[in-house]
Amino acid sequence: MIDAMTGARLGSFGPGSRLGILGGGQLGRMIALAAADYGIACHVFAPEEDSPAFDVCAARTIADYRDEAALAGFAAAVDVVTLEFENVPVESLVFLEAHVPVRPGAKALAVAQDRLSEKSLARSLGAMTAEFAAVNDRASLDTAIARIGLPAVLKTTRLGYDGKGQAKIMAQGDVARALAEMNGQPAILEAFVPFEREISVIAARGSDGHFAAFDVTENEHHDHILHRSVAPADLPEALVARAVDATRAIATALDYVGVLAVEFFVIDGDVLVNEIAPRVHNSGHWTSEGAETSQFHQHVRAVCGLTLGSAKARGQATMLNLVGDEANHWEKLLAEPGSHLHLYGKGTPRPGRKMGHITRITPRA
Amino acid sequence: MIDAMTGARLGSFGPGSRLGILGGGQLGRMIALAAADYGIACHVFAPEEDSPAFDVCAARTIADYRDEAALAGFAAAVDVVTLEFENVPVESLVFLEAHVPVRPGAKALAVAQDRLSEKSLARSLGAMTAEFAAVNDRASLDTAIARIGLPAVLKTTRLGYDGKGQAKIMAQGDVARALAEMNGQPAILEAFVPFEREISVIAARGSDGHFAAFDVTENEHHDHILHRSVAPADLPEALVARAVDATRAIATALDYVGVLAVEFFVIDGDVLVNEIAPRVHNSGHWTSEGAETSQFHQHVRAVCGLTLGSAKARGQATMLNLVGDEANHWEKLLAEPGSHLHLYGKGTPRPGRKMGHITRITPRA
Repeated sequence: MIDAMTGARLGSFGPGSRLGILGGGQLGRMIALAAADYGIACHVFAPEEDSPAFDVCAARTIADYRDEAALAGFAAAVDVVTLEFENVPVESLVFLEAHVPVRPGAKALAVAQDRLSEKSLARSLGAMTAEFAAVNDRASLDTAIARIGLPAVLKTTRLGYDGKGQAKIMAQGDVARALAEMNGQPAILEAFVPFEREISVIAARGSDGHFAAFDVTENEHHDHILHRSVAPADLPEALVARAVDATRAIATALDYVGVLAVEFFVIDGDVLVNEIAPRVHNSGHWTSEGAETSQFHQHVRAVCGLTLGSAKARGQATMLNLVGDEANHWEKLLAEPGSHLHLYGKGTPRPGRKMGHITRITPRA
Repeated sequence: MIDAMTGARLGSFGPGSRLGILGGGQLGRMIALAAADYGIACHVFAPEEDSPAFDVCAARTIADYRDEAALAGFAAAVDVVTLEFENVPVESLVFLEAHVPVRPGAKALAVAQDRLSEKSLARSLGAMTAEFAAVNDRASLDTAIARIGLPAVLKTTRLGYDGKGQAKIMAQGDVARALAEMNGQPAILEAFVPFEREISVIAARGSDGHFAAFDVTENEHHDHILHRSVAPADLPEALVARAVDATRAIATALDYVGVLAVEFFVIDGDVLVNEIAPRVHNSGHWTSEGAETSQFHQHVRAVCGLTLGSAKARGQATMLNLVGDEANHWEKLLAEPGSHLHLYGKGTPRPGRKMGHITRITPRA
């Protein structure tokens, strides 16, 4: 809210305030829909003209994330900025932070964009990760393999998602090809983790430091794309506590405000931090119908400086992604008792494109 | 959906289709939010520049409801038209119907806009209403009073809502003043009903004739404005059935497609039809968190020709309106465990202005 007399930004956010969202995908769309429940209008900044979030917001800026004139106009038009997409340049966030609160901020984004930083942070906080080493060239890759062993996975440190920028090294014969796939980018070698299960913790940290985690979610991927999430994960209490504690420690260390997701591998009775996503997360979509407060509402509350809502579950939840052609069955899914359909308003179902999802909530046994 | 080859409208609605909404208030806003869940973009037509629905839609037309050029452009831009406001001129709907499906249509609107027609329809279907008579002048008013008796209520037949255009006649001395308040408009005299309770049935009828009613809701008004709704109403089974049956008969008689609300008085062990609202309804707001499918989602399904969802309740529901200054307590309400806050993004809380509402859902005893 902007003080009409002085033009100064007031601490208290509320009806009439405007939330800026960097990124116009389905996550931004669902953040904007949640904000609307609280009377908050959204301004979406995205480079793509056909961004799904544009259909549900009060104002749009179509510009490159590095366009400083556009960023300055955006900053002037909103009361707080958040992001739905972790590959926004950190410099753009630094630029915005000079004009308007940005939550989460550049610091959290910088760590989450860099696999080396995120794993180093997790380790420094006492959480476990796969063995890893920085790789810049053939020499450092050989040294890393000598220490970590094979099989291992070589990944670019930045801009990786849904399995892109990754190469498995099963044996010495794969090394040259894997390095070539990095395309000269800084990389990280990670020990191959023959994990039993993959889980994620979706949690929010408020501007007052209050922390609230949703039930731990178990995730199943197809072709490196999330296929199904189930919450709560059927996991021993001790592991749930370890995963939630690691997430809380990471959020606190990053001075994080908003919803974040931490992905873990479950192996040998322990949990290993795999990735930090500084945003609402696909594996948290079950919260829309499955929790007292959805991850999107919770994120809006956190970044707008409002009290966090209850993260309590409403039952046993399953979320199923609709990828590519799977969305063509939407009419059947809409008619299915107990299924809640969410479509993102994207034009054409392309292979691998996330078109929507469904949730199913059943009473907990 | 428009066929790319022929330009013809296809029967099947779906992602990529566009829903036109006449009226830009909070009801249109909540319809647009529900449509977004199904990947459907909305185009809102409203005369007021600061319409709350404009903040959550893909396209806007700011024009008078009688502006035929604007209506033609609107019709060309959408696949189906619905309304959130029953005082749109019937002629505008007739005009639109020549270009695009309108649901509910002009016929339903014409009946709902006219207290004489709606009560006559209810009677013709075997439902009970208060005694009523048409009033055009002093002579017809005197005749009506002679038949119906006093106390009675004189109302304009058209454009009445929230207690506007109504005058109570307690005794002969009130007659002249009451008639003057009608301002020369056609009116209806209704027997004063010393009702015990007020209830409403919110229900949907699909384009296939399928009918689904939500739990009957009990309503409490303050200063003629809905204050609180509770569902399910604590009512004998037989009365619930009578109210739902009357609503189904009305919907069928009007060839209705969409969500409608019928308000009833409960008196002497019977239910009397009071009003038909051809739209989603304030007393159905509890369905957002309290039913498997909200009234807004159900309305979108119906008008878009999709399968109706389950109208099953998720528990015992209470909805509390935030009128005028009551909305200033939003931050406290947001922090209240179990309360779900909805604000409409309206600027200034004026006395009598509906600013938002909260719902509370508890397990059913």
